[in-house]
Amino acid sequence: MNPDILKERQSATFDVEKLTHILDGGPEKTRRRREIESLVINDPDFQHEDPNFMSRSERYDLAVKKSAQMILKLREYGIADPDEIYCYKSLFRGNCHEALGLHFVMFIPTLYSQCDPQQFKKWVPLAESFQVLGTYAQTEMGHGTHLRGLETTATYDPATQEFVLNSPTVSSIKWWPGGLGKTSNHAIVLAQLHTLGNCHGLHAFIVPIRNMSTHEALPGIVVGDIGPKFGFHEVDNGFLKLENVRIPRENMLMKYAQVEPDGSYAKPPSSKLTYGTMVFIRSMIVGESARALSKSCTIAIRYSSVRHQSEIRPGEPEPQILDYQAQQYKLFPLLATAYAFHFVGQYMNTTYHRITGDISQGDFSELPELHALSAGLKAFTTWAATAGIEVCRMSCGGHGFSCSSALPDIYVTFTPTCTYEGENTVMMLQTARYLVKSYRQAQAGQQLSGIVSYLNEAEQRRVQPQPVSARPTVVNINDLASLVEVYKLRAAKLVELAAKSIQQELQHRKSQEDAWNYSAIELVRASDAHCHYVVVKLFAAKLAEIGDTAVHSVLSTLALLYALHGIAQNSGHFLQAGLLSVPQVLQVSVRIKELLSQLRPNAVPLVDAFNYQDAMLQSVLGRYDGNVYENMFEWARRSPLNRTEVHESYHKYLKPLQSKL
Amino acid sequence: MNPDILKERQSATFDVEKLTHILDGGPEKTRRRREIESLVINDPDFQHEDPNFMSRSERYDLAVKKSAQMILKLREYGIADPDEIYCYKSLFRGNCHEALGLHFVMFIPTLYSQCDPQQFKKWVPLAESFQVLGTYAQTEMGHGTHLRGLETTATYDPATQEFVLNSPTVSSIKWWPGGLGKTSNHAIVLAQLHTLGNCHGLHAFIVPIRNMSTHEALPGIVVGDIGPKFGFHEVDNGFLKLENVRIPRENMLMKYAQVEPDGSYAKPPSSKLTYGTMVFIRSMIVGESARALSKSCTIAIRYSSVRHQSEIRPGEPEPQILDYQAQQYKLFPLLATAYAFHFVGQYMNTTYHRITGDISQGDFSELPELHALSAGLKAFTTWAATAGIEVCRMSCGGHGFSCSSALPDIYVTFTPTCTYEGENTVMMLQTARYLVKSYRQAQAGQQLSGIVSYLNEAEQRRVQPQPVSARPTVVNINDLASLVEVYKLRAAKLVELAAKSIQQELQHRKSQEDAWNYSAIELVRASDAHCHYVVVKLFAAKLAEIGDTAVHSVLSTLALLYALHGIAQNSGHFLQAGLLSVPQVLQVSVRIKELLSQLRPNAVPLVDAFNYQDAMLQSVLGRYDGNVYENMFEWARRSPLNRTEVHESYHKYLKPLQSKL
Repeated sequence: MNPDILKERQSATFDVEKLTHILDGGPEKTRRRREIESLVINDPDFQHEDPNFMSRSERYDLAVKKSAQMILKLREYGIADPDEIYCYKSLFRGNCHEALGLHFVMFIPTLYSQCDPQQFKKWVPLAESFQVLGTYAQTEMGHGTHLRGLETTATYDPATQEFVLNSPTVSSIKWWPGGLGKTSNHAIVLAQLHTLGNCHGLHAFIVPIRNMSTHEALPGIVVGDIGPKFGFHEVDNGFLKLENVRIPRENMLMKYAQVEPDGSYAKPPSSKLTYGTMVFIRSMIVGESARALSKSCTIAIRYSSVRHQSEIRPGEPEPQILDYQAQQYKLFPLLATAYAFHFVGQYMNTTYHRITGDISQGDFSELPELHALSAGLKAFTTWAATAGIEVCRMSCGGHGFSCSSALPDIYVTFTPTCTYEGENTVMMLQTARYLVKSYRQAQAGQQLSGIVSYLNEAEQRRVQPQPVSARPTVVNINDLASLVEVYKLRAAKLVELAAKSIQQELQHRKSQEDAWNYSAIELVRASDAHCHYVVVKLFAAKLAEIGDTAVHSVLSTLALLYALHGIAQNSGHFLQAGLLSVPQVLQVSVRIKELLSQLRPNAVPLVDAFNYQDAMLQSVLGRYDGNVYENMFEWARRSPLNRTEVHESYHKYLKPLQSKL
Repeated sequence: MNPDILKERQSATFDVEKLTHILDGGPEKTRRRREIESLVINDPDFQHEDPNFMSRSERYDLAVKKSAQMILKLREYGIADPDEIYCYKSLFRGNCHEALGLHFVMFIPTLYSQCDPQQFKKWVPLAESFQVLGTYAQTEMGHGTHLRGLETTATYDPATQEFVLNSPTVSSIKWWPGGLGKTSNHAIVLAQLHTLGNCHGLHAFIVPIRNMSTHEALPGIVVGDIGPKFGFHEVDNGFLKLENVRIPRENMLMKYAQVEPDGSYAKPPSSKLTYGTMVFIRSMIVGESARALSKSCTIAIRYSSVRHQSEIRPGEPEPQILDYQAQQYKLFPLLATAYAFHFVGQYMNTTYHRITGDISQGDFSELPELHALSAGLKAFTTWAATAGIEVCRMSCGGHGFSCSSALPDIYVTFTPTCTYEGENTVMMLQTARYLVKSYRQAQAGQQLSGIVSYLNEAEQRRVQPQPVSARPTVVNINDLASLVEVYKLRAAKLVELAAKSIQQELQHRKSQEDAWNYSAIELVRASDAHCHYVVVKLFAAKLAEIGDTAVHSVLSTLALLYALHGIAQNSGHFLQAGLLSVPQVLQVSVRIKELLSQLRPNAVPLVDAFNYQDAMLQSVLGRYDGNVYENMFEWARRSPLNRTEVHESYHKYLKPLQSKL
């Protein structure tokens, strides 16, 4: 153990294990998680070369191998609980993705939710025995977030009782689905259904794409890998061009809508049946934001405690870089954010399951709010985490740029969350739509319920632009409850400004739609402020649940730092709305510096509490024992470029160059 | 040509070619640049596979090949002017780095500046004929920015008249130098010189590391590649461990300091002789920031003009995504920033050459200011560009994540500038040191000259915290000169706050050094505000040079957007300092939206004016002709994973899995 990091652990003012239990959701969950993790760590199949040393083809090969291994091992161990499967897989696959990811996450669930009974009986056993390897082909080259724009067609031919699928343009080629390029032999294809001369919009079809015994592409199917990406190297995101591909009528998923043999169409009872899945996945991503950021903080903070550099006082030994205020200011607010997002993730998970219960009993009342909240928080947390990972990486100096730090992998694996499952700006605008609608309802005197009810209060208080001096300042910057209140008022103010911007644009004789577009900046800002309020509020609420005094104390410090740092970063909003005075904003800066010093002795213990195994982090810089440099040297020596003493390019190009000159 | 992008070009309100001349520095420079570029583009050797489809070893191989080719071609064409060589190479190497980069940029220049006459006669011809392939080994695994901390030793042995070089610890292993791993046969090694029992600090030594005919590592030399990184895949950044390596006394670079045969030491006349090179490289990086950001804007804006998505008005065709205000708000401020940085880069280049002239005539007076300015602007521009590239990437939706967009390459190639040649936070603190020193001089009544002279004015005006209402507002937010003034006053205010923070910390009985450390947040903020002021000021100054009315008009719009967007992002500072009122900040938001609409028709022409050839951008999304999708399909089909129809992993893992279940 590196003596610096040992010393850091001795300075903890709280019991790290107790905090780990809170993060896991109880001591029993911690115990079970560790049990599952030890299954992976002690498994000889888990040992493998660093994927960073492999070609893309080798990485893909490893991912397929791991996918197959995981299926067999999970059955062997009898692990069936979804949370436990998640836990097992996330360690086993490391920073890689699962080759059969979409088979599990999209293909099988879609079969479960959209097959009629006969289809269910046919396809589910095939998929669960992996005879059918499936993916979900929705996105096209020219069409992402806006589903109505998809161009792929499925035209019913009553003569043969078949659908004929086509990609009528280049931009209609299916693009991006994971596992489509090489792995899958079937795809659920989303296509515009045409029958008897009418188009009935998007429907889902099971399309065989590869021969089930030779795995070769079927006639009319042009399928392949879409090429290298920023990350996801081991994933065969694919393309699929359909050229008059015929499938039986029974391959349209018919639980809700049907096409009869004669071509007549029966429409589904409701168009909102897939609402729930989207909400679920976006809620999950909030938790992913917390994980990506907490891993990055673990690496950067541990490394900052063993890295010595420069000097504070001349002649003295080089200090740990964690002693520099500038370094603390980079990392501690991110550490606070990681905790905040973790608790928000827990809340989203619980809320989702509660509301799903309500829905199954016919109560849909909370769904719109959850939908708006999950969209906004997905965007809010993924943007913050994606930027935060890079701050962590750059806080490690040059070594953060080395793949041995794992930070490049964490970044490229995480950053797509800003785009997939709903592009972030679009998500923020969806949340804004709900906020503006709620604001107008409040204005019309309607009593709102749930998290937007503050828009009623604001209406009653008639928040208006006014000079700072005219508003009595009641905020106590040392009191979290008071800060929650000020975040709430800021959100109310910015929602109001956005709604007013729309009104003003309408007065310039613009249509409702143009007025909305010309208010997009204000709308995104309003959503952002709303989400920020929710996060601060949920962090504060979490503190009330914590009994242990020492843990409560350190988490309170983090929550205060999170709230005050957010104010410092957005001080203009708070000043503009007259919520804080100029002297208070100056006090906030001073208080932040005190909180950084206060957190300093607990920094390493706070990342230890996330309890990531070294095997999970796969980071030389983030090692628990702090023995960074000797292991970095060992890692580098395994670099493929070191397999030969003299690279062939020397003989091919440099030797001849020397002789030519 | 895609009809959308054609229409964009027809809407230009200015002559694109005239703006290109301004960016190049005159029509003759544009002509010559294009002449050189056409040499590359028409060269059959320039055609090669996309490096994204290659393994690291193949990429390194290609880089070495290109380096050798460029040397021969430049001689053949007789291109010898440094700017022209830069122009040729930057196109020829594309988004890759040069295998012999450090040989040209560090090794040979160091020989020129630090060899004594005999050494010069011996080493320069060897290096210029590439018998000696050199690199510059300074950074160690545990030591970067703080040079005094380097641990490598060179101990003089008078008995044999040799130096004995050693890496005494793991953390002292040389780490990161480009070309060290596989390419170089010599390294200039920075080591602590010990002779006759005394240590005389860092000196430079020429150390042979590989046999000049077999290229094998020499005895006592442990050398290799440091392994894969976030980017720079084709570069063999290396490690070097020295184990009792003996070199002749004459291999110490002796122009300034000498060790006599008996071991006696003569110290150099001045310790600041390498000051100039650092300043030069940092100034150059400002230009690199402009290039990286202008390339990214070119790609994102062109793609946003051909990409249609979602709907503004129901039932109408999907609009170009450039018509969304949210998209404009992401991209147009970055476009303005790219222009701003381009002009700042031009200024830094001119200033560097002017001051170098002064220095050669013995006038060092402006060097400290240039040093402070280049440090701060290097950090300011690289941070802004590195974040901006990612905004551009994410503004392209999923396709930005594909390597075919080139945005991932641009990012990973550029982001290291935040760390190398002086870590950005350290750079900001260096600039802050100069600012605080200047502020104290101004307080002491001294008249400052140059760019910091505003600290005198501020002192005279006694800027102090006061309520907004007490200060008469004189700022005209539509007048650039007025905005330059307000940026200046903000900088003055934040320098004052930083200096006062140090004073306050000192009152808490802290040492000068601790007071400095505990004011780091304020110091970085002050530097940032100073640099921001300089950029706005230089952008405004550039406008005065532009005669063409139409070009002047569009650049004025960009400059105004740059200035107002910076105010909106930092509105807290301006409100806090009483420089703007709350209603003015609201007006700024409204004005920004007007400027976005105003710039919309010129967006594509403004990126066209950067005049990047398709061969330079290497981006499917950024193609001049806008024919994105068909070319993306072509590109994907060349993906190495598509070389076989069925990947071997199917037979190895998936088939057996099916039979096991």
